[in-house]
Amino acid sequence: MRLTKTVGDYYLGSGALKNLDTLLKPLQETNNTGKVAYLIDHYFLKSDLKDKLPIRENDILYFIDTTDEPTTEQVDKIAEEFQREGEIIAAVGIGGGSTLDITKAIANLIPNGAKAEDYQGWDLVPGPGIFKIGIPTISGTGAEGSRTCVLMNHAKKLKLGHNSDYTVYNRLIMDPDLTASVPKDQYFYTGMDTFIHCIESLEGRYRHSFADALSDAALSLSRKIFLSDDMQSKENRESLMVASFMGGSAIGNSFVGVVHPFSAGLSMVLGLHHCIGNCIVMNVMDQFYPSQTQEFHRMLEKQSIKLPTGLCANLTDKQHQNLYDATIVHEKPLMNALGDDFKKTLTPSTVRRIFERM
Amino acid sequence: MRLTKTVGDYYLGSGALKNLDTLLKPLQETNNTGKVAYLIDHYFLKSDLKDKLPIRENDILYFIDTTDEPTTEQVDKIAEEFQREGEIIAAVGIGGGSTLDITKAIANLIPNGAKAEDYQGWDLVPGPGIFKIGIPTISGTGAEGSRTCVLMNHAKKLKLGHNSDYTVYNRLIMDPDLTASVPKDQYFYTGMDTFIHCIESLEGRYRHSFADALSDAALSLSRKIFLSDDMQSKENRESLMVASFMGGSAIGNSFVGVVHPFSAGLSMVLGLHHCIGNCIVMNVMDQFYPSQTQEFHRMLEKQSIKLPTGLCANLTDKQHQNLYDATIVHEKPLMNALGDDFKKTLTPSTVRRIFERM
Repeated sequence: MRLTKTVGDYYLGSGALKNLDTLLKPLQETNNTGKVAYLIDHYFLKSDLKDKLPIRENDILYFIDTTDEPTTEQVDKIAEEFQREGEIIAAVGIGGGSTLDITKAIANLIPNGAKAEDYQGWDLVPGPGIFKIGIPTISGTGAEGSRTCVLMNHAKKLKLGHNSDYTVYNRLIMDPDLTASVPKDQYFYTGMDTFIHCIESLEGRYRHSFADALSDAALSLSRKIFLSDDMQSKENRESLMVASFMGGSAIGNSFVGVVHPFSAGLSMVLGLHHCIGNCIVMNVMDQFYPSQTQEFHRMLEKQSIKLPTGLCANLTDKQHQNLYDATIVHEKPLMNALGDDFKKTLTPSTVRRIFERM
Repeated sequence: MRLTKTVGDYYLGSGALKNLDTLLKPLQETNNTGKVAYLIDHYFLKSDLKDKLPIRENDILYFIDTTDEPTTEQVDKIAEEFQREGEIIAAVGIGGGSTLDITKAIANLIPNGAKAEDYQGWDLVPGPGIFKIGIPTISGTGAEGSRTCVLMNHAKKLKLGHNSDYTVYNRLIMDPDLTASVPKDQYFYTGMDTFIHCIESLEGRYRHSFADALSDAALSLSRKIFLSDDMQSKENRESLMVASFMGGSAIGNSFVGVVHPFSAGLSMVLGLHHCIGNCIVMNVMDQFYPSQTQEFHRMLEKQSIKLPTGLCANLTDKQHQNLYDATIVHEKPLMNALGDDFKKTLTPSTVRRIFERM
């Protein structure tokens, strides 16, 4: 039996960002010359967000390019730059899932000194990272609550995180004011990540009573939000922060199912982002999750979201083979969803037919 | 805005108790002569529970008399005894709400040195207590998850806890095997504490999105458990541990309502225990919580629980006055439930009529 580790300490609510100073002060008082590294999604490069942060003269401000999914090379490059900056006492990640994951990886690497790929796997981080604070600016991935940080390793053709207790954020600040400017489509796609990993987990074979209760709670919030008239109302933005955090806290004790492997296929072969990939897959999951797929269609309709179509209409046989390989490699979630002989259900031709509907 | 602090690290599941050793070892390796204080509900005095604990020769084993609600005097007496034992590196509380609360109070007092009543209030504990591990043996009060420890102070006629971030347990072990021998009535009364504080909080005026989501989740688990054929099945016992922990984690960001003040009246004037008191009150709450009172009646019936009746049938006017005073003094929850002018609703004669139905 494993100790479950989640974030126990957080600020939540409109204006919560103001408390960042309160969290950093004790560290700065103990070590006056140590720097705080701010890792911020490049989306905020031209915004006034940085003026609202308690940045001191010597602190590090680093804008993260989140155009593509985070990679081990990217993390290594940032970690190397930071190593040259002298002592860092805290890492503050401000952004979506990519930024939050990169910050977790960096915080693991700085004191432990290895390469990002060395910790891809389970419980490989040898000791605590630097103190880290997560500040989500879009909700849904659950990265703020989870004990992993998903990184692409292109050399090894691997998408895997630092699954470790040390990867868990020390503190969170969940301020719905920060998600006010998220574009509608992105808000929906990312929010759906919570809905999707929760339904996958609850429909799976593996059970964990606390993760189930959290997933249930996150799901009922998601339903309320995405079937309401204004999914981006202030109240709904705060609810989605709660749902995302709850879903993320459940991840360490649950497994996803059929959607994530197919979505990972889309990421690996066609370069799609995680969240939109999930939605494109969820849209055609009637065989595996019939009622939830209908529910997803109702949410799409209610929020007037048009998913891209025809993605896999004109692919070569080779590309389809790659899609199949990149999907079927995710044995744990597929076994959770379909049982040990999942390959009997997911034959190459079945998988191809599913992709062709996307 | 206040930092929300809950227990982030826990073991959950049948057999989880075995991990106590894993939690204590790092502390013992750092300080080999320091003692671990085990505070155990006296209910287990003659059981084989202590044989399952990793007790070492010099550790302290203390059985707590939980016949009456915990008092400040009781806590001071134990703390004094412990002070004479030399250095204590951890406190392990094993029992129900009373034992878990006493352990939290002791852990606050040992390094900080004050009297229990000095910390009754909000944020009065000046610094971290000793490392503490909570191990519930009955579920419902939420004491394992909350940031308080409720103590009676008879001298000051006060029932108030150490509301403080430092009061939160560092680790929990939730092992449903430990609740297997709980007598049926006690299981029901205590479990209902979760149902009751969650409905009070959700029906109140004060809102907190995370506490609401936790309360909702705890409520739906409670409904499933107490409307099922065997509320004490292994699965239900584990679910009730989860519900209790979730409810307890919500307490710090929520307020109770009408039930708890009336129940506190019964405790103060007639000496009733908290959980049975809550049930006796909930039974006659149709004016304030109509649908939830009906739901409570269905649960009583389903589980064949017979509540004591006629408790307040033959009280003197003086006793009724005391009941009124001890109820109405709880302004925060009553304002949460009924608004600022709650005394207009809760006149002495109304309150008396409600008590007379118990």
